[in-house]
Amino acid sequence: MTQTKIATEKEFLEYVKKMQHLNEAIGLMYWDLRTGAPKKGVEQRSEVIGTLSSDVFAMSTSDEMKAFINELSKPDIYDSLSHVTQKTLDEVKKDFERNAKIPPAEFKEYVILQSKAESIWEEAKNNSDFSLFQPYLEKLVEFNKRFIGYWGYEGNKYNTLLDMYEPGITVEILDDVFSKLRESIVPLLQKVTDAPQPETKFLFEHFPKEKQKEFSLHVLKEMGYDFNSGRLDETVHPFAIGLNPGDVRVTTKYMENDFRTAVFGTIHEGGHALYEQNISQELIGTPLCSGTSMGIHESQSLFWENFIGRHKGFWKNHYSMLQQCGGSQFNGVELDDYYRAINIVEPSLIRIEADEMTYPLHVIVRYEIEKGLFNDEIEVKDLPRIWNEKMNEYLGVTPDSDANGVLQDVHWSGGSFGYFPSYALGYIYAAQLKNAMIEAMPDFDQMVEQGNLLPIKQWLTENIHQYGKTKKPIEILKDVTGESLNPDYLISYFKAKYSEIYRLNS
Amino acid sequence: MTQTKIATEKEFLEYVKKMQHLNEAIGLMYWDLRTGAPKKGVEQRSEVIGTLSSDVFAMSTSDEMKAFINELSKPDIYDSLSHVTQKTLDEVKKDFERNAKIPPAEFKEYVILQSKAESIWEEAKNNSDFSLFQPYLEKLVEFNKRFIGYWGYEGNKYNTLLDMYEPGITVEILDDVFSKLRESIVPLLQKVTDAPQPETKFLFEHFPKEKQKEFSLHVLKEMGYDFNSGRLDETVHPFAIGLNPGDVRVTTKYMENDFRTAVFGTIHEGGHALYEQNISQELIGTPLCSGTSMGIHESQSLFWENFIGRHKGFWKNHYSMLQQCGGSQFNGVELDDYYRAINIVEPSLIRIEADEMTYPLHVIVRYEIEKGLFNDEIEVKDLPRIWNEKMNEYLGVTPDSDANGVLQDVHWSGGSFGYFPSYALGYIYAAQLKNAMIEAMPDFDQMVEQGNLLPIKQWLTENIHQYGKTKKPIEILKDVTGESLNPDYLISYFKAKYSEIYRLNS
Repeated sequence: MTQTKIATEKEFLEYVKKMQHLNEAIGLMYWDLRTGAPKKGVEQRSEVIGTLSSDVFAMSTSDEMKAFINELSKPDIYDSLSHVTQKTLDEVKKDFERNAKIPPAEFKEYVILQSKAESIWEEAKNNSDFSLFQPYLEKLVEFNKRFIGYWGYEGNKYNTLLDMYEPGITVEILDDVFSKLRESIVPLLQKVTDAPQPETKFLFEHFPKEKQKEFSLHVLKEMGYDFNSGRLDETVHPFAIGLNPGDVRVTTKYMENDFRTAVFGTIHEGGHALYEQNISQELIGTPLCSGTSMGIHESQSLFWENFIGRHKGFWKNHYSMLQQCGGSQFNGVELDDYYRAINIVEPSLIRIEADEMTYPLHVIVRYEIEKGLFNDEIEVKDLPRIWNEKMNEYLGVTPDSDANGVLQDVHWSGGSFGYFPSYALGYIYAAQLKNAMIEAMPDFDQMVEQGNLLPIKQWLTENIHQYGKTKKPIEILKDVTGESLNPDYLISYFKAKYSEIYRLNS
Repeated sequence: MTQTKIATEKEFLEYVKKMQHLNEAIGLMYWDLRTGAPKKGVEQRSEVIGTLSSDVFAMSTSDEMKAFINELSKPDIYDSLSHVTQKTLDEVKKDFERNAKIPPAEFKEYVILQSKAESIWEEAKNNSDFSLFQPYLEKLVEFNKRFIGYWGYEGNKYNTLLDMYEPGITVEILDDVFSKLRESIVPLLQKVTDAPQPETKFLFEHFPKEKQKEFSLHVLKEMGYDFNSGRLDETVHPFAIGLNPGDVRVTTKYMENDFRTAVFGTIHEGGHALYEQNISQELIGTPLCSGTSMGIHESQSLFWENFIGRHKGFWKNHYSMLQQCGGSQFNGVELDDYYRAINIVEPSLIRIEADEMTYPLHVIVRYEIEKGLFNDEIEVKDLPRIWNEKMNEYLGVTPDSDANGVLQDVHWSGGSFGYFPSYALGYIYAAQLKNAMIEAMPDFDQMVEQGNLLPIKQWLTENIHQYGKTKKPIEILKDVTGESLNPDYLISYFKAKYSEIYRLNS
């Protein structure tokens, strides 16, 4: 039996490696489409991506995969597998069970609906007309309700959706954590908006693109981003993509009338990229070779963007270089003025343009709506009204149109329900991890001020990056911090930072 | 039966489409590796390419493919297939028969030998030591002799190898054509080298890269290269690659001390690219969607590089723009001096650096050696001596080292025997095609001088490009020129052009 086990384990690993190879080819085509593929080739390239994606999906639900899972899951065999094979098996098994439970005809119908809904959403958003999108959104919600029926759920139906993006996180946890967060942020936000605002006019003056690029490249290098394992390109919507740990690409966007887009966007994507570049080499060729969850990934990008990139010490060290790159716009702008300007807090309508303090409130609005939809407490037809009410209640702003309200995000049109909470979880995780880091490296502030960032990257690699998907989000959190999810660190951070910036006498 | 036929035809086309989709993904990965893929990701990416290539190979020799071929080749069924399906079937059948005749174990051994031989060749070339490479080359020749045994041959063993790159071309044809060519070029070359040489010093002065790029882009546009279906990038070894007709990419190389590399290299690759961009859309997804042969492809690149790019009229129209881009290096260089300089003829050791007149002689040296090897008239161990003798006899130059002699080309290390003749055929085809074009458009010279290049591109598309692989090389030649392969047009072109440039009173 040992012989057979070894043969099967090896064949299984070859099988999943092939899936990863197809995924890597798909990833490169995706990157290429966004960084300069000729437009007349796009339709044909999309077909190629479709062919390879179907192959991966077919492999994940094939009889061969089923046989591997059945054989290797036998307790005596499972126990004898390597740790990596065990975790790989767990991962593909979860996918298999999820995918196999949906009747194929129904899944096909759903895929067609998704692609139609995305283009209808775009039209609805352009016309700011929710009624166009409503019937599609209703169907998407219906489908996902039926899927939850197939998959089953524990505690709350919405938990099954959350589990796709953030395994281990439930409604019970989020209700608790998000209400604490909301109850702290809302009054703090009130004080901040009542206080005098920093001067920001200089942010919007002309900053040459080439100089923004020079600064961005410099910062990526300092973060420890390895240019022998990556490259920086320009796109309309910035992203980072890990094809394998030796090829993790970052893109950014240069706006000559607002350098913050490139500077903070590059640091943010660089944070994602450091994660993917530093996953253990032994996970290459398995589905474990990527970030463990959306939320933990976001914790890495936000850690760098906010805790490093918006840290006063970071700018003590970098402001003069930025001034040289940007030129006269910084004349008369002292370091402290600059620091306050890049940390301005302003309630606004659009999630992706929000500052770090109001951002979680945007996510909470979406979370509450999604939870209501899947527990039959909210109907799709009422979404515009409910959206606007919640925005007014939490942020004190009311959308002037559905385009700037309920229609602003693409996620729902693709059937991605349960995804939004990961964005806020990223902030909470990041603050918790930072606290653990400071305990390990008490001179954190000084290191940031001195541009000594490599030990920070090193710490993140040792505690988070290297594990890829072999550890679940909550497992990482517990191993690193000794605690479960805890929003207090983020709340304390907001209070301390913004009391200083806005000179509140709290 | 009609129902079944239709079902099978459709399934067959789906099957070959999938192969093309995999090839397109491989093509993009290849392009990416050469234009800026991070170096630490290269090894892993090569594995991905290997996986997809094995898939394509497995599909081309599978039982499923065999069943398609058997079914669709039945005469009554074949006759009822669409023209495109018939040609597709012919194409995959040829591959199938070729691949299926080699015992799998032997093929695997050969693939391993190829990859070893390439790295040994590189070492041998770097050390200019043929003895390192000799045993590998002997084995490669041995393998190919055995393959010819499996495949069979007509007339001459070497024909079977020629057929892989240039179907329809045989030793009988080449012996005739190449001897005519050689007998005309050698005495003409003698006269040219005895005549006073043009002044070329100005060619090697500093020409800024950005300005070379500006000029290259301008010329590509004038040629009718569609930038919505392509892009220009920079590489060490320039190439053009057609992923699909809507995505045909060109690369070039900028040498600041010799602008000719970029200018003529871009026009050359642009010629290849025009071919791939203008293949009929209905061939997308079949193996017919590429140039019909190496030689016809080369005829397109050489047509543009030499008959347009080295045409006096072209420079009457473009020299002033080049002067503006290049600056002071052209001071005092009249158009006629410039024209003579870019058409200088000089016998030299290296094929890829040769001018258009001596280039065919480099090819003939290789042709005669390959033919001798496969007819047991030449032994591998004697190659350095034979190479040097032939170079001296035809070109009047003797290599100072094997690195600059028999070891200069990569082709043999990859087992590519029968490929070299295509390069010379490209010249012959191009001159024949140009003659037919002038009959159709008698004001060709005037059009070139006026920069009216689009009708030229149009003519090539109508007569050559659109057909992809649905017409064989000789079929194209006969349909366009009414003749079989005929070297006289190239010979006349050389005589007329170089008599004028070198002011020979022939």
